[in-house]
Amino acid sequence: MNAEIISVGTELLLGHTVNTDATIVAQALSELGINLLYACTVGDNAGRLKSALEQALQRSDLVITTGGLGPTKDDLTKETIAETVGKPLVEDADSLERIKQYFKGRYCSENQLKQALLPQGCTVLPNDVGTAPGCVVSDRQGKRIIMLPGPPAELTPMLYRYAVPFLQQAEQSAIYSDHIHVFGKGEGAVAEEIAAYLDGANPTAATYAKDGEMFVRVTAKAKTKQEAEALCRPVTKEIVAILGDVVYGVNTDSLEQTVVNALKSRGETVAAAESCTGGLVSKRLTDIAGASAVFEMGACTYSNRIKHKLLHVPQELLEQYGAVSEQVAKAMAQGVRKTAGSTYGIGITGIAGPGGGTAEKPVGLVYIGFTNGTETWVKKLGGVQTAERSREYYRMISASAALNMLRRYLQGLDPVT
Amino acid sequence: MNAEIISVGTELLLGHTVNTDATIVAQALSELGINLLYACTVGDNAGRLKSALEQALQRSDLVITTGGLGPTKDDLTKETIAETVGKPLVEDADSLERIKQYFKGRYCSENQLKQALLPQGCTVLPNDVGTAPGCVVSDRQGKRIIMLPGPPAELTPMLYRYAVPFLQQAEQSAIYSDHIHVFGKGEGAVAEEIAAYLDGANPTAATYAKDGEMFVRVTAKAKTKQEAEALCRPVTKEIVAILGDVVYGVNTDSLEQTVVNALKSRGETVAAAESCTGGLVSKRLTDIAGASAVFEMGACTYSNRIKHKLLHVPQELLEQYGAVSEQVAKAMAQGVRKTAGSTYGIGITGIAGPGGGTAEKPVGLVYIGFTNGTETWVKKLGGVQTAERSREYYRMISASAALNMLRRYLQGLDPVT
Repeated sequence: MNAEIISVGTELLLGHTVNTDATIVAQALSELGINLLYACTVGDNAGRLKSALEQALQRSDLVITTGGLGPTKDDLTKETIAETVGKPLVEDADSLERIKQYFKGRYCSENQLKQALLPQGCTVLPNDVGTAPGCVVSDRQGKRIIMLPGPPAELTPMLYRYAVPFLQQAEQSAIYSDHIHVFGKGEGAVAEEIAAYLDGANPTAATYAKDGEMFVRVTAKAKTKQEAEALCRPVTKEIVAILGDVVYGVNTDSLEQTVVNALKSRGETVAAAESCTGGLVSKRLTDIAGASAVFEMGACTYSNRIKHKLLHVPQELLEQYGAVSEQVAKAMAQGVRKTAGSTYGIGITGIAGPGGGTAEKPVGLVYIGFTNGTETWVKKLGGVQTAERSREYYRMISASAALNMLRRYLQGLDPVT
Repeated sequence: MNAEIISVGTELLLGHTVNTDATIVAQALSELGINLLYACTVGDNAGRLKSALEQALQRSDLVITTGGLGPTKDDLTKETIAETVGKPLVEDADSLERIKQYFKGRYCSENQLKQALLPQGCTVLPNDVGTAPGCVVSDRQGKRIIMLPGPPAELTPMLYRYAVPFLQQAEQSAIYSDHIHVFGKGEGAVAEEIAAYLDGANPTAATYAKDGEMFVRVTAKAKTKQEAEALCRPVTKEIVAILGDVVYGVNTDSLEQTVVNALKSRGETVAAAESCTGGLVSKRLTDIAGASAVFEMGACTYSNRIKHKLLHVPQELLEQYGAVSEQVAKAMAQGVRKTAGSTYGIGITGIAGPGGGTAEKPVGLVYIGFTNGTETWVKKLGGVQTAERSREYYRMISASAALNMLRRYLQGLDPVT
C-alpha cells in the first residue's frame, strides 16, 4: 500500500510553524509498513488543495491530510475533500454532543458547532483533546482519505487511538515495536554489530541516532498485537545480548528516567555539582516528575571560590591541577555528596567553549567524577584537538555521560568504560 | 515571484527526521516577499524527484531543493537536476580546493571529492561548515533552481550568506528585519495593540508566539539594506513605544542573553536557588557563552533540609508557611545571594506538577524572589485552579519570569509587574 501526506496550512508555507505533523504521521505509517512516497504542503487555498488531492489520489492508495479542520473560514480541508469525492456534509450526532460537552458552561460560537458536519458515510475519528473531529472517507475508486487536525497535541492521540487501529483493522494486521536504548556506542558501530538483523523482514530492525545517543527499533507485524510482540521478543533479546552493557534500557524514555526509576526502587539519592554543564544534569533529572524524591541537591559552581566554599574543594587542588582536572572532578563529587547528605555524588568540570580552551586543555575536555562515598571514579571526555563542536553539544554529551556513570553503577557495572 | 520547495530524503518520509529545512527556507522566502505555494518531500529516488521537479518548474518561477548533495550513492539531487535541465556536471576548482582543505591531514575518500562536480554554468554557493557546495542553476526557460544541503547547520549559513543575497541581487532588492522581543504579554493582546501596523505593506509587521514569549517582526524591502533598515526604523520605534516595558530587547537572542549582556556591562553577578525549576535558570544562563563571568552560583534545592543548610532558610518559615510560599522564595533569594557573594539573588519555589498540588496550592503556583541585597521582591505565578498545563510549561514560564524580573531591574524598572 502506498500513501501520501498532504499538510494544509499557510502558516507552514510562511515558515511560522515546523511541520511536525508530517513527521508524526510518517512515523506511524512506517511502523505500519505502509510506504510513504510523497509528502506535500499547501496553503489554506481550496484550489491548490484540490489539485494536490487529485494528484495524490491518482498515484497513491491512501491520502492522509493534516490541518484545516478548525472552525474558521480558513479551514477548508473537509469541505474541499467532500466536494472532491462527491459526498455532502451531514451532521454527526456524536461529534455534535462532544463539542457541546467541551464548551459546557462556556460560550460556544456557531462555527464551533459546524465542526460536527462530516462527509456522508465517513468513519468518524473522535477528538479526545480538542473540538474538531477527524474522519476516514473513500472516493469512488475506494481509495481512502484520512483527515486529521493540525495541532500535534490533537493529531497524535487521534492518530494512535483511532486512525492506526482503523488501518490495522482494514489491513487485518497489528504492529508492535521494542525500543532498545544505547549510550556510549555510535549508530554506525551498532549497525555493524547487528547487521544481520537489519535485513530482517518481520520483525524489522533499524537504527536511529538521537541527541548523542542511539536506539534500535524492532518492529513486527502480525494479526494481533500479542503475536507481533511474540515475534519481536527473541530478536530484541538477541540484539540486547550482542550490544551488551551499552544498552541502558528497553522501552524506557531516557537515561534520566532510567536513573530516577533505579534510585527510587533502591530508596537512594544523588546530588550533582556542575561546572561546564551549568545545571543541565539538574534540569534533566528534574524534568522527570517525582524526581524530588531522589535528587537531593544540584549545585552549579563556576568559580573556584564557590567550589571551595560550597563543595569544600581544597584550594591546593585548584591551584596545583586547575579547576578542569581529574582531581577537582573527584573532589566536587565527594563535596556535593557530603553537603547534600546523599547516597551518591556527581561532579562535572570542563570546557564547553567556544573559547577558553588551550593546547593542553582544549574545548571539549571534561572530567566527570562519581562517588558512592567509599570509592570515587572519574571519566574523561575529549582532551584531543579535533574539529570543535558546539557548546550545546559538549554540555549535552557531558550530562549524558554523567547520568550514564550513575546508571552503570546502579545496574551493577563498572561506572567507567 | 512564486516559489516551491522540494525536500529530498527518505529519512523524512520514514519520520526519522523533522523537516526543519523547509521551515527555514520558507521563513527566508517570506522575508524576501517571495510567495511559496507548495512544499513537497520526496525520497532518495531519482524518478520521483525528477517528476516533482518537472511539475514544480511548470507552476513556479523558483525551485529550492534541500538535501541529497552528500557524497554517497543515495545523494541524487545534483545529478537528477543536472539531467533535467540538460547541463553536464563539471569540476569546480574552488569547491575542490575547499573540500581538500576540509580534509587536510585526514583521510579523504574519492566520493568526497566528487562533491566538487557541479552543473556547468551554475553559480556556486559555498559551504562554510561542511563539504557539499550548493548552487544555482537555470533551466531552458530561465527558471531558477537553488540546491541547498540537508543538514540544517550547513543549510542555514549557505542560505543566509549566499542564496538570499543572490536572490536579492537578482531581484535588485534587499530586505531588513527588526525583531522586537516581548515577555509578559501574549501574542493576541500585542496584535490588538499594534493592529494598525499589521496591515502595513512596506514595512510589514507580524506577530509570532514562541516558548511562552512572543516577538514582532518588522520587515522592509528596498534597493539596499540601508534603505530597508531606514524604512523599518520609525515603525520599530513606534511599536516599541506602544508596547512599553514588556519589550525586553530589539534584535537580541533571548531573555538570558539580554540579562548576561546587561550584567557584564555593569560588572555585576547573580546567583539562583531553584526548587521547582530544578536548574533551568542555571541551564539557560549558562547556555550563553561567557556566562561564567556573571553567574556566580546556581543551587537546585528541593528538600527543606538543603534549603535550610545551604541557603539558611529559617526552619520556622518552612514550617509556618510551607516550602511553596512568598516567605520562602524571599529567603531563598537572600540566602543564595549571601552564600554566593553575588550582586543579586533569585529564589524560585513552586509546584510544577503533575501531582503535588492541593486546592490551596494548585499545580502551577510558583513564587519567585529577587533581591539586590537591600530590597527583595516576590512575584507570584498561577495559584488559581485552571486547566493544568505540562510540567515543562510551568518550568519554562517560571524560569523566564525570574530572568524577566532581573531584566526589568537592570533596565531601571520595577522588577514586579
